[in-house]
Order: sequence, then C-alpha cells, then structure tokens
Amino acid sequence: MSLIDHTHQADAQSWVTSANAPDTDFPIQNLPYGLFRRTGSNEDARVGIAIGEQILDLRKAASLGRWATDVEVMLQALAQGDLNTFMAQAAARRRRLRHALFDALLAGSPQEAALRAALLPQSEAQMAVPCRIGDYTDFYTGIHHATTVGKLFRPDNPLLPNYKWVPIGYHGRSSSIGVSGGAVRRPLGQLKAPDADVPVLASCKRLDYELELGVFVAGGNALGEPIPMAQADEHLFGLTLLNDWSARDVQAWEYQPLGPFLAKNFGTTISPWIVSMEALEPFRIAFAHPADDPQPLPYLDSAKNRSEGGYDIELEVFLQTAAMRVAGLSAVRLMRSNFKHAYWTLAQMLTHHASNGCNMQPGDLLGTGTQSGPEACEGGSLLELSLGGKQDVILPNGEIRRFLQDGDTVIIRGHATRPGARRIGFGDCSATVMPAPELP
Amino acid sequence: MSLIDHTHQADAQSWVTSANAPDTDFPIQNLPYGLFRRTGSNEDARVGIAIGEQILDLRKAASLGRWATDVEVMLQALAQGDLNTFMAQAAARRRRLRHALFDALLAGSPQEAALRAALLPQSEAQMAVPCRIGDYTDFYTGIHHATTVGKLFRPDNPLLPNYKWVPIGYHGRSSSIGVSGGAVRRPLGQLKAPDADVPVLASCKRLDYELELGVFVAGGNALGEPIPMAQADEHLFGLTLLNDWSARDVQAWEYQPLGPFLAKNFGTTISPWIVSMEALEPFRIAFAHPADDPQPLPYLDSAKNRSEGGYDIELEVFLQTAAMRVAGLSAVRLMRSNFKHAYWTLAQMLTHHASNGCNMQPGDLLGTGTQSGPEACEGGSLLELSLGGKQDVILPNGEIRRFLQDGDTVIIRGHATRPGARRIGFGDCSATVMPAPELP
Repeated sequence: MSLIDHTHQADAQSWVTSANAPDTDFPIQNLPYGLFRRTGSNEDARVGIAIGEQILDLRKAASLGRWATDVEVMLQALAQGDLNTFMAQAAARRRRLRHALFDALLAGSPQEAALRAALLPQSEAQMAVPCRIGDYTDFYTGIHHATTVGKLFRPDNPLLPNYKWVPIGYHGRSSSIGVSGGAVRRPLGQLKAPDADVPVLASCKRLDYELELGVFVAGGNALGEPIPMAQADEHLFGLTLLNDWSARDVQAWEYQPLGPFLAKNFGTTISPWIVSMEALEPFRIAFAHPADDPQPLPYLDSAKNRSEGGYDIELEVFLQTAAMRVAGLSAVRLMRSNFKHAYWTLAQMLTHHASNGCNMQPGDLLGTGTQSGPEACEGGSLLELSLGGKQDVILPNGEIRRFLQDGDTVIIRGHATRPGARRIGFGDCSATVMPAPELP
Repeated sequence: MSLIDHTHQADAQSWVTSANAPDTDFPIQNLPYGLFRRTGSNEDARVGIAIGEQILDLRKAASLGRWATDVEVMLQALAQGDLNTFMAQAAARRRRLRHALFDALLAGSPQEAALRAALLPQSEAQMAVPCRIGDYTDFYTGIHHATTVGKLFRPDNPLLPNYKWVPIGYHGRSSSIGVSGGAVRRPLGQLKAPDADVPVLASCKRLDYELELGVFVAGGNALGEPIPMAQADEHLFGLTLLNDWSARDVQAWEYQPLGPFLAKNFGTTISPWIVSMEALEPFRIAFAHPADDPQPLPYLDSAKNRSEGGYDIELEVFLQTAAMRVAGLSAVRLMRSNFKHAYWTLAQMLTHHASNGCNMQPGDLLGTGTQSGPEACEGGSLLELSLGGKQDVILPNGEIRRFLQDGDTVIIRGHATRPGARRIGFGDCSATVMPAPELP
C-alpha cells in the first residue's frame, strides 16, 4: 500500500456538514472534479469540487479564499473552466491542490467563513463533460464479460488466444460522450436477421448498456515515446463511471472485420465527477493473474502493479422503467460487480496503449470494458443477464426485459469502501432511452 | 454534373505567375486551405491558401485587401488560425469566400498591388495539421484492397458478407495525425509468429503504408439526428491525401475481436492542404455498383449519388530509400490508382456514419480506406504489392522491399484532370520512417 496521507483519515470531518453523512458519495476525503454551471444560467462552465451535497466553485474559491501562491495559480487556471491544463500537471502538484482544498474544507478551517460564499448546492447545478476529451479508447479488461459474450458471438472460440497477452482495446467516439442526467436516443441501424437474405435499416431492437469505469489521462507522452509501467500511475488522473451503450443487433452485422462502429458510437454516458487517483489510494489492492494463466510480458509488469495495481471498487447497475416512474417506484438493482475482477490494470491499459509510441494527451478517456463478475447474475450488460436475449429478466414489478425499452433509465453507481477508510462514491451515471428517429 | 461556375474556367490565370504553370498543384482554380507559420518563427499558426508556389496569408489579406463585409468577417475568423469555425459555415458561404479569393487573385484584379504583400513562398513556411480534428474515422471503401487483404487474413472468406451492404469503418486515433514532411517512428508491439508459443515485444518487422484520401467534415449534425443522403454534400468540406501507417505483424496478432488498434494508431500522415469540394466539382463522375452486386439500401442511395457521387482522382505512391537519397536518386513510383474504384462514395460514408445519430463535428476526418486498383500492380500498400510479404518488390536501383525499412520516405501524390478543366493537385503527403525506440 502506498503512503496514505492525512487526506485519507477516516475521521476527518468537513464544515460542509452534508459531507459528513455516512452514506454521502462526496466526503472530504473524496474531492472529485467536475464542470458545472448554475442551472438555467448562461454562465461559462467552471470547475468545481463536489463536497457533500454542495459544489465548491473554484472560480469563487480562487478569489474568496487565502491560498499559497502555487495553489492560487492552479486555482486561477481551473477558474477559467479549463480542467485539461490542470490534468497535465505533475502528480505532486495535483496532490498539492488536493491537500490545500482538504485543509480549507476541514472542520475548524479559518477559511470557512470566506468559502461559504463559494458553495452552490448540487441540486442547483447543471453538469457538463468535465474536460476536453481528445481521444476515447475502450478496453476489454472484463474477462468474465469477454468470455460470456465471446460464447454468444463465437461459441467454439469464446476467449481468443490473444486475450491473456494483449490488453485488447479499440478506439471509440469522443463527440458523442455525454454526462449523466441526459438521454440516449435509440439508434437506427442496418440489421440482418440470421435467416434473412438482405439487411434492412430499422430501429435497434437489442439496445443494451455496458457497465464500465473510465480513466482520464493526466500528463501525456510525446509521439513515439512509450510510457513505462513504472511511470504509468503518474499519467492517470482519475476515474468516472461509464455506460457504453450498445446496439447488439447492429454490432452483430457490422463488426467484422474492423470491430464495433455504429453499434457503439451513438452515445456514451459518464458520471459528472472525476474521482482522483489520490482519493482512491486507500482502495488499491494486490493484482495477479491466476498462476496457470500466462504472466504479463515484462513491459506490462512491475512490482507496484503486482502489489497494488488493482482497485477494489464496487459497481452496480439499476434500472427504472417508465412504468416504474409512473407508479412512483424506485430504480431496481439489476446486478453488482467489482472492478477487482478485471484481467488488466489501469496502468497496464495505459502502458500498452502507449507502447507503440501512441501519444496520450491530458483529458483522454480510457474505458475499462464491461466489468462483469464471475457469476451469471453479475453480468454487466443485459446481453449477459438475458443469456443473449434468450431469457427474460423479471423485474420486481412484473415487467420483463431482454433488452432496453424506450423510457428505461439506466443508472450505474459505484463506491469504494474498506475498514478504516471513509467511503468514496462516484455519483450517478444515469441516462434515459428515447425513441428512435423516424426512418428516412 | 453540377453547375460549373467561373472559378472552374480552365483558362483563368492568376497574377501569381507560378499558379499558371501547367504542372502546378495549385492553380487559381484550386485554392486549398492550410495552416502555416513562417519557418523558424514563433508566430501563431494562421490559415493560408496555396496559390502556385506561394501562400496567400489570410491574416494579412484580411487587413490589406478590400473585401465585401461578409467576406471580411469570414477572413477575420480565419486570420485567427481557426479553420474549424469556417468549416462549420453553410456551403453557400464557403463558396462565397472561394469566389472572392478567386476574383482577388485573378490576373488583372485591382487587388493585386495590395495583396502582393500577403504572399509567403511555400518554401519559407512550415505547415501544421490544418484544423482541430475532434474524431478520426477510417473507412474501408477500397474493394480491391479489402479483397486482396481479406485473402491474406482469411483465405476462405476474403470479402465478408456485410461488405457490399455496410460502408465498413472504425474509429482511429486523432492525436497521432501529423502533417506531411515529418517522420513516423517504427513502433514496438506484441508480435507472435504463427509457430511461436508466446508473443514477444519487439520492433515491428512488417511496417507498411496505406494510400488513402481523407475527407474533412464541414458543418456537423446534432446528436441523434441522422444526415440524409440528399444533404450529405453540404456537410463535406474538402479532401487531403492520407497515409494510414500500418504495422502488419502487430495487426495480425491484436485485431480480433475488436479491430485494429496499436497496429494503426502510432501515426497517420496527411497532406497539408485541404482541397475544397468546390474545387473538385468538375471531377465528379457517375457512380454505380455493378448490376450483379446488391444495390445500396435506400438510406445510402440518391439520384445525385448515382449521377455524380464519384470523384475521378488519380493517386500515386512513391518511395525514396535512404540509399537513393545518398545517391541523389529521386523517389520512384510504386503504383498508381484512382479513387473512382472505391465501392462507397464520400456521401455514403458520411450518411452511414451519422445514420445512427452519431454527431459529426466540423473538422472531423474520415479516411476512405486504402485505394487499390483492380490490377495486382495497383495495390495501395506493400502488403498487396509483396503478396503478403512473400514476394520481393524490386526497385530500379536494385534494392528490394517487402515492407518498409528505416530511412524510407513514402510520398503519396494525387491530382484530378479532365479535358476542359484545369489540373487540381493535392501537394505531397510525405513522411520518413525513423528507427524504433529501444526495448524497455
């Protein structure tokens, strides 16, 4: 375990009292970054820190608070709504700002009186995608997902021979990444039934979600210069929850030979807050491939990766249908899993991505791939829970699903806990399925 | 054929005399957009127009010339180095600027005296990627390439059943797109020989180029709103040449099941000038799939696409090895082909991409995929010319290649000609292979 500093002390309390509630996602030990504006305003979006039920507006905090010069310089840049420049800072400087904000928000801080005026209730804020995402890459680290889905697409050959050697990934679409709270429109697409002679353009009939985490890149690398495993952690900024919406019927027809395209790029939803790697330090865990699996090639291996490359993060998917909303019923949990089941670590994803010299940039987003657990009930998509659309998923109110219907709201939640540490949450990653456009 | 306006008249001459040379890529009928700064200067990059051997600096032209108010507004935005905002303008406004620049550069224009001071020789300029490329997508429209390469990867199944229905594409990496004149570093990657038990990390042994065109998106579409074929042309800004560098040995091991990733994202080279769709109007040609092939689904079909969806653009690949450079030998032509062989049109690529509601943005880049001709000698990559690395390609100086060696410079050239029209060229798309980094 890395050195745990005072910002992780479980008994630290904030003068923002809602941050001290035991079940809050945003205690003072978290301090995640997001981009917001006051709902309904025309203000430029600005960077804020979630604290309990409030947001600390860093533009106001920069001018109202008393800060050391180096901290103030960072706050001034963030006050412009530019998270990317801050993401590019060295890890030590990012940690420096975390410490300054922690100290300022700590119960008894002399900054309380000044900074109260820099708070905005989260209920009065509209969130935006937190930074400029230059490139978005989606990995495939969930081995249980890869095996289950592989069986559906390739019954004879579920897990391909490269899976345990290569952290498989592919490029996704950055323009269609949206923040929690919005909608995703059911796509039109070419569909071809197995027994049909020709495809047709139609609305997707097998719309699905995928439960993922996303990691934002901090400082990048120059084109042509790989990032060694020993330096990978320095290049990681923080995590969000991520829903990789998927049109399974489109995917089945289009994906050979170049991979998923229109089946995936009509929308990706992320949670609005980036939980920093610093906040997640207490939840690092040992990481090892099973002894009878191939061990990573040296460029994907390091002592630190083995001793603490994993992260123990609980993940859950909830569903609220339109009928449930009308009846006043809360969302129901469809499954839960944990990021500790991933076959590759965040550091391995990043190092592999840059191993050919591909240049990573601050704000780039890497999806982890679907995080299913080992049990059938832990599938991170409806494709898995419905056994490829062949079995009903029965909801508590009697509704059934094999794939998503219009009006369904999918909510991903995540949090990290362990004895002696404060619970760290991510906030909701939620979006609602809207009907497809008319056929042309 | 669309209405041809006076900016296409073959006998129009410019007061920039080098633009009147019969073999120039940049006659007054072309007027392509690029981003440049004076070599060695620290100036902000600015937008310019290639004219003969010169660049018309639009920052200087905006202040030195006399322009109608609406033209001046467009020039002022371009003067800031922001091509994307101009790309987002309606086609009529983009055409308006083209006409104003054409008239100002025409022999006998009263603007000559003022605008001479806005010229910079291309030899004194350093070019940059011309706009912010938010997302880069690579298609696979070269059916001869798809068939030949398909045979190498899947001898029993070269052209998959979806090829003649779906304009196959996948997402590429935008961060590693560079402009002509630079280098590409041979990547490291996981390689696994067919007879090896395990893969190794090593420098790529089968480094290749791919001959492509790239089309830049003009105005985009809102997320969830497809672009009908009837409107596709409005959304296309212009073309560049594009080299999709490819590591064949990396590709073979990594590409299943999610497509090419590190085999492709270590570098993509584009030519510096974007040749506008307006300049290419005279080279539109009828487009039809062979009668015994499936006809496009209605959403990918339009009368205009059939009558003039194709573009007659000659494409060539040249190679200059390090030994040739030392001996003072010019680059030799490896092949030539024509974009008219593509199985899908630019409009079909765009409309398919947006058919699921994926939001295109100004400056997005769509590669056409490798443009091989029907003959074996017309392969758009060394993989094709060397029959999968099994046959030597013998160069005039006696050197042989199956794949690229360090020091090799690959140059893509392209131009459009037809009787009664002025030749329109693209300028070189060139880059040199540098040695791989040391193994970690």
